[in-house]
Order: sequence, then structure tokens, then C-alpha cells
Amino acid sequence: MSDEVTLFEVCVDSVMSAVTAEDGGASRIELCANLGEGGTTPSSGMITAVLKRVKIPVMVMIRPRGGDFCYSEEEFEVMRLDLEHVKKLSGVYGVVFGILKPDGSVDVERVTKLVEIAKPLKVTFHRAFDMTNDHLKALHDIIRIGGIQRILTSGHDTTVLEGLETIKELLKHSGDHIIIMPGGGVRESNISRILSSVQLKEIHVSASTKFSSSMEHKITNIHMGKALYDDEYLVGGVCKEKLMGMINAAATIKK
Amino acid sequence: MSDEVTLFEVCVDSVMSAVTAEDGGASRIELCANLGEGGTTPSSGMITAVLKRVKIPVMVMIRPRGGDFCYSEEEFEVMRLDLEHVKKLSGVYGVVFGILKPDGSVDVERVTKLVEIAKPLKVTFHRAFDMTNDHLKALHDIIRIGGIQRILTSGHDTTVLEGLETIKELLKHSGDHIIIMPGGGVRESNISRILSSVQLKEIHVSASTKFSSSMEHKITNIHMGKALYDDEYLVGGVCKEKLMGMINAAATIKK
Amino acid sequence: MSDEVTLFEVCVDSVMSAVTAEDGGASRIELCANLGEGGTTPSSGMITAVLKRVKIPVMVMIRPRGGDFCYSEEEFEVMRLDLEHVKKLSGVYGVVFGILKPDGSVDVERVTKLVEIAKPLKVTFHRAFDMTNDHLKALHDIIRIGGIQRILTSGHDTTVLEGLETIKELLKHSGDHIIIMPGGGVRESNISRILSSVQLKEIHVSASTKFSSSMEHKITNIHMGKALYDDEYLVGGVCKEKLMGMINAAATIKK
Amino acid sequence: MSDEVTLFEVCVDSVMSAVTAEDGGASRIELCANLGEGGTTPSSGMITAVLKRVKIPVMVMIRPRGGDFCYSEEEFEVMRLDLEHVKKLSGVYGVVFGILKPDGSVDVERVTKLVEIAKPLKVTFHRAFDMTNDHLKALHDIIRIGGIQRILTSGHDTTVLEGLETIKELLKHSGDHIIIMPGGGVRESNISRILSSVQLKEIHVSASTKFSSSMEHKITNIHMGKALYDDEYLVGGVCKEKLMGMINAAATIKK
Repeated sequence: MSDEVTLFEVCVDSVMSAVTAEDGGASRIELCANLGEGGTTPSSGMITAVLKRVKIPVMVMIRPRGGDFCYSEEEFEVMRLDLEHVKKLSGVYGVVFGILKPDGSVDVERVTKLVEIAKPLKVTFHRAFDMTNDHLKALHDIIRIGGIQRILTSGHDTTVLEGLETIKELLKHSGDHIIIMPGGGVRESNISRILSSVQLKEIHVSASTKFSSSMEHKITNIHMGKALYDDEYLVGGVCKEKLMGMINAAATIKK
Repeated sequence: MSDEVTLFEVCVDSVMSAVTAEDGGASRIELCANLGEGGTTPSSGMITAVLKRVKIPVMVMIRPRGGDFCYSEEEFEVMRLDLEHVKKLSGVYGVVFGILKPDGSVDVERVTKLVEIAKPLKVTFHRAFDMTNDHLKALHDIIRIGGIQRILTSGHDTTVLEGLETIKELLKHSGDHIIIMPGGGVRESNISRILSSVQLKEIHVSASTKFSSSMEHKITNIHMGKALYDDEYLVGGVCKEKLMGMINAAATIKK
Repeated sequence: MSDEVTLFEVCVDSVMSAVTAEDGGASRIELCANLGEGGTTPSSGMITAVLKRVKIPVMVMIRPRGGDFCYSEEEFEVMRLDLEHVKKLSGVYGVVFGILKPDGSVDVERVTKLVEIAKPLKVTFHRAFDMTNDHLKALHDIIRIGGIQRILTSGHDTTVLEGLETIKELLKHSGDHIIIMPGGGVRESNISRILSSVQLKEIHVSASTKFSSSMEHKITNIHMGKALYDDEYLVGGVCKEKLMGMINAAATIKK
Repeated sequence: MSDEVTLFEVCVDSVMSAVTAEDGGASRIELCANLGEGGTTPSSGMITAVLKRVKIPVMVMIRPRGGDFCYSEEEFEVMRLDLEHVKKLSGVYGVVFGILKPDGSVDVERVTKLVEIAKPLKVTFHRAFDMTNDHLKALHDIIRIGGIQRILTSGHDTTVLEGLETIKELLKHSGDHIIIMPGGGVRESNISRILSSVQLKEIHVSASTKFSSSMEHKITNIHMGKALYDDEYLVGGVCKEKLMGMINAAATIKK
């Protein structure tokens, strides 16, 4: 494993970002809507449009809302329906989800149900993992469920760099059973330090920036929602230079 | 028209909110994802799940991202694909969208294309209207396109109450050609004043509140996205009491 | 009174903004720190520096923190000490404060104490007024205390334009006892409508914009506080053009 | 040095937090206003009130606004005046400031001037250090200025944990010339890891939480400023339990 290159998964919320990620060297895409709340299930049209434009594998986020990961019956039903819809869209490589119980443990029963429905799609258990009450128990629960290829995690901490010791512990306990894919706060300024201190098969980045809107007529006293209060004329997206910078940094370390 | 009751359209982003809106007396639902950015296209599963649970008409938001309303070719393609997908989901009553050109005028050509695809679904032109450079020209452009039943607007101002004079002007100019549906900042504290000063066929409200998450194990140093920095364990939704309060206030005025 | 010009009070949080406000035609300044939380007590040096540079009257905000207006003993003591300090700085025209009781009524006892200390400085009761439980009772309480020349209010509503009916009611009840100075959401786009529908002796505006920082070396992954998450290299301040635009609009109406 | 206990400096923005910090075991206080923007100069009354209530040394923040650290002539004048005022308040132990040039280097000339005025007060160079273009050059510039006892830094990175390698480098280069006091993102969940991997004389923490306002009458549609949009009835402050938890964790490691 020691001479393997670390693969980059890039989270995107637009066709343009998906294309940019592929051009920039991404090995895989995690397709979301609403990255401002950490990513929710994209619309059907967004999935279809991205599949038409990129050749690299596309993982689709299945998350019915922002916030915590303890879902109502209705929300679980939405996840189930979205999963069934995504399966029908030929070309999707996998799905990304995570469900917890109120006590902070993995909701094994519900996750198992979704994994069954997802087959033969690949499955990533996302950063709901970082909100669990016991990361080793959560790891073993997820491995035991089966059918889940990887866990996206910031090491039970604010960012990957802060959670690095826990990530090492998870790598040790995961063995060949599941891929630990660190993600959260990975940037050009820290990727070399991360990859120098831990050997990773895969890493998850956003490599994002803000692009100016193409609107010329701008109105500043009307807002569509409070989340974007200051920047309704800025749109987030993948920055090819940032992504390539990180991929190059990773390649240098692995030489 | 003078003895007509004002109909309430409620914007929702979950099955629970849709059911609550119906129970509370809503006449119609606008179904979105990501209300924090003013609403984007919901996932396929969300639409299907809501259609299963409510009997009132469901209008589906077709908006590929937050921010401004000037879209790239790729974004327009996503809207087109979402529209085609929504048409196939039997039971959807209509769709909600709006596209502007960089100069702030309605993008008549693109809107016309989407209206054609949408048929026979109903169409609402949403608050992109409030970001136009000339509200009367925008009104006439939208009427001239044809096939659009209503415009959602805060009267080219921050809120409906602030835009009331413009709303009156729009009502005068719209005649029987199109319904002007005010929305934006309509609350229990101002709905009586709004409906006392202008007679409306329809009004658009969110009637929203924040509900506590059902998670018991809470982690405060890890966040999934910056938009919810302070309230990852609060989830927004329709408040039945607020909605009923507004509907009752409206009924009192109309007596 | 009918041919009087409406006076403009401008809230500022820097020397540059104070100078710009004076140049732009402001009649008075409300000097604060931390306008992002609605204004808190400025530092001693800020007050001294502003007094050196402007000739128009300077009102100093006395507010020990953002948030609500129900203060602990310690916070009240801080207000008292700040008031005594401000009195010693020769040149200050007046102070701005407001204190409520937990039930939402004016804390008559504490406000009376501060008014006594403030003498002979002028006193404005600020928008704590808008958070009271009964605006007419609050008005009468404030008049009854005596020594308070004006109330800054958005009419018990989100903005002045939304609260216009309440502002008219307050004007009627205030008579010659106290000046009702509307403030909150007053902009170039609505000042003509406000001043056309109600005759005002004074109005309070921020006329603010965002200026780019003079830093050339920018770092985007380090933040000093979460409130400015996106714009640590933007600094707010008074925009002379906006202010002059509003003053001109007001003059036109009064002709 | 190996058996020394790490001293805790706690940043506070209220009398209550200052008292809580002292009770909880803090060795020193950094007194600020407006912690939401990373701390600005507190009002005169706040400084006086805190000095009356705590016995531990109080360092006063001298920062005329949030945002970047490149100041106009007017802003520098405000800092100078605040420094002179603070010196007159008997009991202040020291002051905290930092000034950069547009190119990201330490503004040696201006910092030197302020250090001269500050004497005999102690001086901390704050996290403006983390926004410099070259941390070793900045370190040497600050040492060369003289009269500055410590640098507050997150190691030129988002948080102390992320900047740990740079902090080690700074410690090595600082020798006995200046104290490197890490601060930024230090929490109960990571303090043991930080103190296990680097031996520190001092550490800077906020140990903050949100307390509910004592207001019973709450209004949700009126806001005093956009920074607190969601939580105008929550007030930040020092949490004694969090602080003691960190101090205990530090003591355990040093044993």
C-alpha cells in the first residue's frame, strides 16, 4: 500500500463544480445540494445533469435536511424514496448517508434497511459518524452491518487535522474491512501535514471558493433567505487551482 | 370578489411541515429544499413523500441553487431536467421558478421554454420578480409569456408590508391576467394590517418556527456546515398555531 | 412645524464615519461600538477622537453588551460607570440607553437613576423601546420619568416602514413632551415613502456600506470571531452618497 | 521549567465572566468588548467595574474595530487615546494589541510607538500575529521591538491544534525572549492533546457558553443587529465548569 497515491473525493453542488473537479483530477464526486448546511439530497435533475457530464464515479448524498442525524419516520421514508429513485438513474456509483439514534449510537436497524435498498450501489457512511457517542463502537457497528465501503470522518473532531489521532486509531481498527476517508477542513494549507503523518487511501475535500454572480443589476435590500444575508451575489463552487494544488501536494509526499 | 376569503399558500421543506400546513388550513403548498437560502429544488423522494401525505395542491420549487437568478447553461439544463422529472411524478399541481437576465429583466426566452415544458402544470413566477430592474415591465413580460398563473412578490421591497404600495400598483396593472400573491415577511404581527389595506386573493407565508432536535447526545464543537453554526440541533418547520392565527386574522377582516 | 426640515441622526462606529456623516449633512451623531449587534458602549479613546473631529452634537451609546435589555446588577454598574466617565469627557452632547424589566416594561427605577446621573447631558431612550410589552405604556413611563428628550423606535416592528402606523400613534400621544425619532431599516429606497406619510422632526439612519480593507496580504482560513466569518477584510462605515441621497430626498418632500 | 503548571488566561467581555474566570482558576484575564468579532476595546466603565471585582491581573484589549489589523491614521489615534486612558485607570496590568502593514508584516514603527506609550504596562501582541505573511520574521520583529512580553497565537492556523507544529517552531525560536501563549479553538476536548504534545507556560482560552437572557417577554421579529439574528435572547459568557475542566486536565498532564 505504501506506494499508492491518495485518491481525492470532491464534494460538489453543481454541474460546473463536478466538471471542474473531474478536470482538476478528482477520482470521485460526492454530489449534494445545499453545501452550506453540509450537503442534502440533490434534485433529480441535478443528478442526471452531472451524470451526463462527468465520467468519474458519482456518489449521491441522501440526507433529507440539515442539522442532526436523528430522523423522524417521515424523514426516513423520504430517504428510502430518494434511494429508490437514485437507483433508477443509471450511472450513479453510490450513495452517502448516515442515521443515528437519540443516544448518539449508529441506528443499525435503519442503516441496514437502507444498505439493503441501495444494493448494488456503493455506500459511504458520512460525518454523522463524527456525531456518535463512541467512535470505535460506531466503527464496529458500521463494519458489522456490511455493504458499506467507507466512512467519511473528521476523526470525531472539528477538522481532520484536529482529529488526526482518532483517525489513526480508526485506521488501525478498520483494517481491510472498511476505508476510512478523512474529510472536513482539509485545505491547501494543511494537506501536506495531514498526508505526512498518516497514510491514506482516500481523502475528501471541497476545494471551494466563491464566484461572483453574473448579475449586473444588483439589489441589496431584498434577500431570499437569511443564510446568505451578505452574499446573495456570490456563488460557491470548486476552485480548480485549489484542487490541483492539493493533489500535487499529495503526489509529492507519496513519491 | 369582495367577499372572497384570502387563500394561504405555505412554503414547506419537509413532510411534517406539509402535513402541518394542510392541518392548519393551508390551501396550497410550495415545496422546497433549503429554505435558509430561500428555497431550492427538493429531492425526488421528498416530492413523492409529500404527495402521498397531503391532499391540497403541491407546487414544486425549481431552483438549482441559492443566490441570484441568472443561470448558466448548465444550471438551466438542471432546471429543465427537474421540470421533466416533476411532470412525471403524478400528483404535482404546479411548479415555481424565475429566471432573470444580467440586466435585471425577465429572461423571456428561457422562461417561455420552461413554461412550455411545464404544461399542463400550473406555474408561479417566484421572487426573482423582486430582483428585476423594472417591476411593471417585468409584470407585463410575464403576462405576455402566458401560461403563468401567479407571481410571488414582496412588492420589490424587503417585505410585503414595506412593498405594499408597489403591490397595490401591481394588482391594478395585473387585472384578471395574473394573480399577484404577496409573500415575504408576512407574520402574525402584520397580516391584519396587510389584508386591511389591500384585498388579496392569495397570500404566501412560512409560519415557521424552530423545533428542538430529538438527539439527546449533543456535540457542540463539530459542525456540518457554517450556515447553521449555532443551531445544528434546531430544525425549522411550520408552526400550526402561527398559521391558524394568520388564517383566523384573515377571516376576521374579510367578514 | 410644517415647513421644518427633518433632522438626520446618523449612527457611526468610527472616526471616519463620524466625519463622513458630518460632511454628508448629518445633524447629530450616535456613536457606538459594534454596530453588528446594534451598537454597544464605545471605548473612551473612540469618544475622545470623534469629539476632536466633528462639530455636530455627539450622542454616546451606553449599552454594556448586545442582546436583550434586561441587565444584571453588574451590567447596570458598568452602565453607571460609563455614564460617569462620558460626563467627564467635555464635549459630549448626550447619551443613549434603555433598560427593561423581565416582563417587558420599562425599568422606571433604573432608567430614572441613569437619567439623574446623566444630567445635564441629553438622553435618548433607544430601541429597547421596541422590545417592550406595551408601547403606549412605555411611552408614558418614559415621559413621566422626565429628562429624556427623544425615543428611537422602529414603531414596535421590524423596520420603520413596517411600524409606520404605530409611529403615527406614538407621535399623536407624545405631543410636545418627547420627540419620536424613527430608526431601523430606513434606506434610500424607502425614505421618501416614510417622510411622505408622516411628518418627522428627526430621523435616524445608518447609511452604511462595506469598504474593502487596505490589507493586501489576505488569509482566508483564520478568523478572529464567527460574526464576520465571510468578510474579515470588509469594514462597515457611513456612505456619504447614501446619506446625501436620503437628506436630499427628505428636502424635496418638505418643499 | 518541566514541573511548572501551565497558566490560564481567559478572555472575557463582562464583569460576570471576569468573576467566573477568577473563581474557576484563571491566572489572568483578557478583557474585551464584542468577542463575536474576536474582541475590541472595552468601554471605560467595563474596565473599571472589572478591576473592582477581580484580583487577578487584567489585560485590556486595544482594538478599535473588528476585521483586519491594518489601521487608518484615525484608527491608530483611537488606539493611542485608549491606551492613554487605560494607563490612567489604576489597576490595569497590561494591554493587548497588534498592527500590521498592508503587506502582512508587523508595523514595527506603530507598534513601537504604542509600546512606548504603554510603559510600564505589560504588552501582549495578539492574533494579528496569525495574519502575518511570515511568522518567524514577525516573531523576530516583535522581539526586536522590545517591551512585549508575550504573543497570542494559534500557530498561523485556524486553531491551536491545527497550528501545533508552527507553535513548536515558535517556541524554539522564541527562547527566553518572549512567551508564546497559544490561543484559538482550545477546548475541553483537545486541551489534553495540546498540552501532551507541547510544554506551555501559558494558554489562552474562552471557555464560553451561551446563557439564556432573563427576559420573559420575548419578541422574535425585531432585531437590533444582524450578527445575533437567531439568538438575541442568548448571552455569551464564561462557563466555570468548562474552565475548571480544562485547568484540571492541564494539571493532570503536568504531574
